[in-house]
Amino acid sequence: MTIYASDQIHMSIPKAADVLGLGREQVRLVKSDARFRLDVRSLREMIEADMSRGLVPFCVVASAGTVNTGAVDPLAALARVAATYNLWFHVDGAYGALGSLDERKRPLFEGLERADSVSLDPHKWLYAPVDCGCLLFRDPAKARRAFLTDDADYIKVHEEAIDESFAFWDYGIELSRRFRALKIWMMLCYYGTRRIRAAISDDNDLAAYLAERVNLAEEFELLAPVELSICCFRYVPPAVHAALREAEPTERAHLNAELDQLNARIMHRVQRGGRAYLSNVTLNGSYGLRACVVNFRTTRDDIEQALDIVREAAREISEE
Amino acid sequence: MTIYASDQIHMSIPKAADVLGLGREQVRLVKSDARFRLDVRSLREMIEADMSRGLVPFCVVASAGTVNTGAVDPLAALARVAATYNLWFHVDGAYGALGSLDERKRPLFEGLERADSVSLDPHKWLYAPVDCGCLLFRDPAKARRAFLTDDADYIKVHEEAIDESFAFWDYGIELSRRFRALKIWMMLCYYGTRRIRAAISDDNDLAAYLAERVNLAEEFELLAPVELSICCFRYVPPAVHAALREAEPTERAHLNAELDQLNARIMHRVQRGGRAYLSNVTLNGSYGLRACVVNFRTTRDDIEQALDIVREAAREISEE
Repeated sequence: MTIYASDQIHMSIPKAADVLGLGREQVRLVKSDARFRLDVRSLREMIEADMSRGLVPFCVVASAGTVNTGAVDPLAALARVAATYNLWFHVDGAYGALGSLDERKRPLFEGLERADSVSLDPHKWLYAPVDCGCLLFRDPAKARRAFLTDDADYIKVHEEAIDESFAFWDYGIELSRRFRALKIWMMLCYYGTRRIRAAISDDNDLAAYLAERVNLAEEFELLAPVELSICCFRYVPPAVHAALREAEPTERAHLNAELDQLNARIMHRVQRGGRAYLSNVTLNGSYGLRACVVNFRTTRDDIEQALDIVREAAREISEE
Repeated sequence: MTIYASDQIHMSIPKAADVLGLGREQVRLVKSDARFRLDVRSLREMIEADMSRGLVPFCVVASAGTVNTGAVDPLAALARVAATYNLWFHVDGAYGALGSLDERKRPLFEGLERADSVSLDPHKWLYAPVDCGCLLFRDPAKARRAFLTDDADYIKVHEEAIDESFAFWDYGIELSRRFRALKIWMMLCYYGTRRIRAAISDDNDLAAYLAERVNLAEEFELLAPVELSICCFRYVPPAVHAALREAEPTERAHLNAELDQLNARIMHRVQRGGRAYLSNVTLNGSYGLRACVVNFRTTRDDIEQALDIVREAAREISEE
């Protein structure tokens, strides 16, 4: 049985395939396009090829906001493929699905409404403290069929009203859980969609602003389009920038390897410095710095400062 | 591949077998003895029979404190069986393993130290608020081999010192987690083993006290030996008590069915009343009331009151 996802998919998907007893080889990685979105034509070809080899495709996983760059897979086209082959259509929206609240980004998410299941992490872009995960089902009865156990006395539900007799353990793998839903519910009630939408739109603006500053600075290079609130870039000393433009392939590979090392050292220095937090990313083979804005307190000034801190780290390294 | 556990095992084990892709039919339920402990001779016979049918036994799950009655399986004998057949030896100590802190109960837990893995729920008998689960491994490298993913940038561990580079996601299925360990660590430091042991011993005493009161009262019947801090009993109107003693098998079954209904009504009334909390249990086919003492504030007076509340519920039902 095979699962399909792009090469940008979150590690939780292959890990889930392992836990389910399928093995991570059963997660078929489809190549992504220049914007790091799953390539639908390749998906169709891979499914057909797998079926002709006797494999049994059962699930397509789309990313609505990849962890690396925030790319949103073409959800409507993927929903159609899933329907064609009768596959479960799961959307990993852990980081990004709430980005659809920003109306300017809404078109990216077309097709999300056709998912069989959507995962969300309110501790990411809904500003809730860790940990808080959420899984939405189109048809919860299917989850119940998978997880229901009704032969244990200690989990018998004695209430008869629908709300009172609802037991989460019938719909997933957990048996104990905090009432995390309360804090999310209260946050939604207190702030309301409009306020949350505004905060999410601001975060998107800040990532776009960061990309703008990166593009304007001769010592930075943008590594991926900014889709939501993630911006991936790297530091390139101006001299190297010029050399890269004119380099032969071998020389270019050499320069890139040096840039990878430099950016890795920058990232460690920034993380250890404690004034800004960037993570790392590998895109088209290059080591990059990844900024992800999911805080409603972040300002343009923070963005400027983060770039200054990166410049400072690069200067310190060059002086060592 | 088959897993072995007693018919008293917690539902989490068959559910885990489902999630692992094995299916709950692969959990082979071994009959339990008069004290609700796994019968070791039956286990050996079942393993031998399964192997001769071509099945592949790989795991024995013992309960160190079953959810129904607190029975502790014969751990030392089970460890020997596991060693003989080269099986993983898991001890489900979620409720009961900390009961071993009560020195009078220590002999029950002989063999616990030979487990490959032990599950604990500090939110049960370590007085921590829900949710807090804990899994101990004899050899964590085995968990790491099962769960390690080192191909995702965003989970690369950049620190090199052993403590700093330790990542829980390499040892289990979770990818995000609260720092629940902190509260447990602080509780252990603040109260210390002696104080916690005293509280656990008190809980055991209270369950024994409840059993004593049940045995002394003509309207109650004890349904299982009290091993740790769980006491299972049922309400039997004195007239029925006498009738049961003299009844023919058919008449006895009829009386028992009536007692089941009565005790179910009592349990609902007590739960809804909100003054005491009893859960239900089925033991040897009889519906019982189950009291589990895992609070350091419970007193003998609470025990007396709980019995009075049950009597009151029974009286109210008889008057309806």
